[in-house]
Amino acid sequence: MTVNATQELLLSRIRDVADHPKPGVVFKDITPLLADPVAFTALTDALSEFCVRHGATKIIGLEARGFILAAPVAVRAGIGFIPVRKAGKLPGATLSQAYELEYGSAEIEVHAEDLSAGDRVVVIDDVLATGGTAEASLELIRRAGADVVGVVVLMELGFLGGRARLEPALAGAPLEALITL
Amino acid sequence: MTVNATQELLLSRIRDVADHPKPGVVFKDITPLLADPVAFTALTDALSEFCVRHGATKIIGLEARGFILAAPVAVRAGIGFIPVRKAGKLPGATLSQAYELEYGSAEIEVHAEDLSAGDRVVVIDDVLATGGTAEASLELIRRAGADVVGVVVLMELGFLGGRARLEPALAGAPLEALITL
Repeated sequence: MTVNATQELLLSRIRDVADHPKPGVVFKDITPLLADPVAFTALTDALSEFCVRHGATKIIGLEARGFILAAPVAVRAGIGFIPVRKAGKLPGATLSQAYELEYGSAEIEVHAEDLSAGDRVVVIDDVLATGGTAEASLELIRRAGADVVGVVVLMELGFLGGRARLEPALAGAPLEALITL
Repeated sequence: MTVNATQELLLSRIRDVADHPKPGVVFKDITPLLADPVAFTALTDALSEFCVRHGATKIIGLEARGFILAAPVAVRAGIGFIPVRKAGKLPGATLSQAYELEYGSAEIEVHAEDLSAGDRVVVIDDVLATGGTAEASLELIRRAGADVVGVVVLMELGFLGGRARLEPALAGAPLEALITL
């Protein structure tokens, strides 16, 4: 499938849901895409291509929707899958990173032993919004001594400024969105 | 890979973590398996085989670790993926089902439009413990008018009695565990 054909297919399977999670917000719902195996396969192929092109040796999925996108890519590309989870979920010794939300803060974790020097890591998520979670994940990767080789998302909500926020943490590594809205 | 070789490989990539999530509990950690692409691929193949053998038309993954297992199976088998999530996460019109935990209760949801009469549904999760979440997911499927054609998990913790609890809701549909502990 050409890049444009893939983008059109993916876009056609994302629906707007008004007032979720709160009034005035239009939520981009990817569940119609996940329910369509042709579209989900095209998405997996496009994300895998990014990982292979950048020589990834580990793929990070961000809880929870990032798991749904990153796990098939890891299997398809034959690259290890590493979950980054909300605080308190991972059972082993972790590295933790706090980050700011619109109101308050949150914390994500990775198993310390899952990343080490020499690893080339790609971060996958469904949406790049304000970039807070992705930025925190890049901090975790660097603190573990591994290299960030890129971030790839299904869609970027450009008006929220996540790309600018992520730029310092990316330190030159590419950020790619299959669709920009 | 033979069934026994697959079981041995999978078992070798699951580690015990003492005292998680609380003192006295030994947690079965699957992250070493996910980080090993050979093992993760073997797991995906085995779960896919179950789905294909039972003629599934929809695959449900249970949040959050069930997402990691079910999504690659959906892509591999070319079957639609349907997320069952904790209450409040899905943006569209949902069916909800409450269930009891050791202390208190919880609630899971599915998009009402994602399941309908004629669908043949397989539920995938990483662990069958007490069976509460799986049981609630089977209720959701039936209330949506779809058929449950099976439940498949990576591992069953037999001493917790989940199989007996699930039996009425299964109504004759198979429950398969790749590993029983």
